[in-house]
Amino acid sequence: MLALAGYPLDIRVRTLDPGEDTPASQVAPAIRAAFDDSGALKTLATDSDVLTFEFENVPVQAALAAARYAPVFPPPAALEAAQDRAAEKALFERVGMAVPPYALVSSLEELDAGLERIGSPAVLKTRRLGYDGKGQTVIRDPGLATAAWQMVGEVPSILEAFVPFDAEVSLVGARGRDGDTSFYPLVENEHRDGILRISRPAEGVPALQARAETYARALMAELDYVGVLAIEFFRTGEDLLGNEFAPRVHNTGHWTIEGAETSQFEQHLRAVTGLALGSSALVGYSAMANLIGRVPSAAAVAAIPGAHLHLYGKAPRPGRKLGHITAQADDRPTLAARWLQVTALLDD
Amino acid sequence: MLALAGYPLDIRVRTLDPGEDTPASQVAPAIRAAFDDSGALKTLATDSDVLTFEFENVPVQAALAAARYAPVFPPPAALEAAQDRAAEKALFERVGMAVPPYALVSSLEELDAGLERIGSPAVLKTRRLGYDGKGQTVIRDPGLATAAWQMVGEVPSILEAFVPFDAEVSLVGARGRDGDTSFYPLVENEHRDGILRISRPAEGVPALQARAETYARALMAELDYVGVLAIEFFRTGEDLLGNEFAPRVHNTGHWTIEGAETSQFEQHLRAVTGLALGSSALVGYSAMANLIGRVPSAAAVAAIPGAHLHLYGKAPRPGRKLGHITAQADDRPTLAARWLQVTALLDD
Repeated sequence: MLALAGYPLDIRVRTLDPGEDTPASQVAPAIRAAFDDSGALKTLATDSDVLTFEFENVPVQAALAAARYAPVFPPPAALEAAQDRAAEKALFERVGMAVPPYALVSSLEELDAGLERIGSPAVLKTRRLGYDGKGQTVIRDPGLATAAWQMVGEVPSILEAFVPFDAEVSLVGARGRDGDTSFYPLVENEHRDGILRISRPAEGVPALQARAETYARALMAELDYVGVLAIEFFRTGEDLLGNEFAPRVHNTGHWTIEGAETSQFEQHLRAVTGLALGSSALVGYSAMANLIGRVPSAAAVAAIPGAHLHLYGKAPRPGRKLGHITAQADDRPTLAARWLQVTALLDD
Repeated sequence: MLALAGYPLDIRVRTLDPGEDTPASQVAPAIRAAFDDSGALKTLATDSDVLTFEFENVPVQAALAAARYAPVFPPPAALEAAQDRAAEKALFERVGMAVPPYALVSSLEELDAGLERIGSPAVLKTRRLGYDGKGQTVIRDPGLATAAWQMVGEVPSILEAFVPFDAEVSLVGARGRDGDTSFYPLVENEHRDGILRISRPAEGVPALQARAETYARALMAELDYVGVLAIEFFRTGEDLLGNEFAPRVHNTGHWTIEGAETSQFEQHLRAVTGLALGSSALVGYSAMANLIGRVPSAAAVAAIPGAHLHLYGKAPRPGRKLGHITAQADDRPTLAARWLQVTALLDD
């Protein structure tokens, strides 16, 4: 989607990815190599004006190596913090963000001690390589600590209080090379089996919006951030607790393709190439559903007014995000009607 | 732009074009061959579910040859009518459309007779291969008939009354395989040196819109048309005179990328692949300027809120359409302010 957003701006994208027939390789030239292949990185970097990433598990060393040849945005330090839940939590606290009670856990003894302090239910997450609900488990009974410790692979982890949140909301925004920032409205997310299912603008929350933006600006300033960034929060009443951040364009911002004056993809390209950020004002009202594992027929989606189908060129596989549908309308009642039609297609 | 609109719908585009480094070849696989290369046409057609074109000077014989292997939309008959101003005028009259007085001219004698009947000023246009003001000349003085005849190359031509129109307006719309139609609002066009410069929605003309759509529906039905079609009209007061039509996505509809719920490119893909047509409702207010011969810096465009830059990946050349800028806003006064900033970049 970055490559597609780049063409109209005459920004040509080239990718490096170890995968075969990746979505990006279907729309832009691709170098197929490991992320840490130094020759491939050098080739990519020396041919490029600027480098970026849209996957937060790119090795930090690869980003640092590439930075010797071309500017890398977002900064590798952001990648580093995002890859380690302990560093992430420390960063959140450093910039004044509230976070759920947590404990670092490197052994079963530390897990027991953590459960003692935090109570249960609690969530045990590996510090590294967590993605879409993989590498985490909920501990409802302290007696199951040993089993939980085995389930996460007995690797350095973090134990977090289970927050009985009202909603999970996320803020997507960008910071330009000049330090200017721009944010989209908070969206409310629904997950199923740990996978993002639906994102809709959170309604009537100007105070929350302001607080979320304050947190995000502080985080971005601390990292000297450039590019699009997403923060996921737990909302409990009028409070926001930082859950995690992603130093990249984010699934919960895909609705901006139709629903905002500047899509998050164009915004990211503007930021990393040093252009002025675009307006993040809403265009009507939008809601977005992910297509997971299977996709409805294009004909069924096309028959719904205001429904926009986006397929990613991926082979279907259970649990895999294959695309999304954004429903868009000029007013809320029309959106609600269209949204019903969209969700009726997600028959699972 | 068709290829870019296709990716999210999982519609993959492949092109055939004799040109080197064409805009399309930068975003989709391309076969480089003459339009009438029968081997290349067969390769393209047998690998495709459906064929279309976005250039009305594709040889009709090539479209007919390809139609042996795969459906071709719009129908080759539409291409044929659009390539000959005499056939086009006859078609317009057959479906009840008013046209300016005209005469077919195949000799200097016929030109003289035509000028006698129609009067001057009049416009002499070659019947074939007219494009962006090439192959036509205005005759203001009947004494210059010989020179005008030489200027158009002494080929079969059409002499048209010079219409003192209030505006040139165009209607862009689509007809699906099921016969359903959908139209965007009329836009008003400004040309310079015969090249489209600016397109803006025509204001306050519901009666004209209805009449234009009636004409377009009749034309489409007559041709059993499938795809996006544009008709250019001369508006004089409350009257519309048919000028010409284009059986393809059209420059005066480029604003629909941001300014309508479904862009003309997605609409064309929906039509030719047999999907339901999308909503052509407006998204806010838009205006579009072509970038001719040179382009402003991306930084200057990015600094204007609501301005969307579209570059076509073409080498600059005087008189060449290199891209366009669409200005978009939620209300007319904001659009007017943004539009002033956009036009200030077109310093020629």
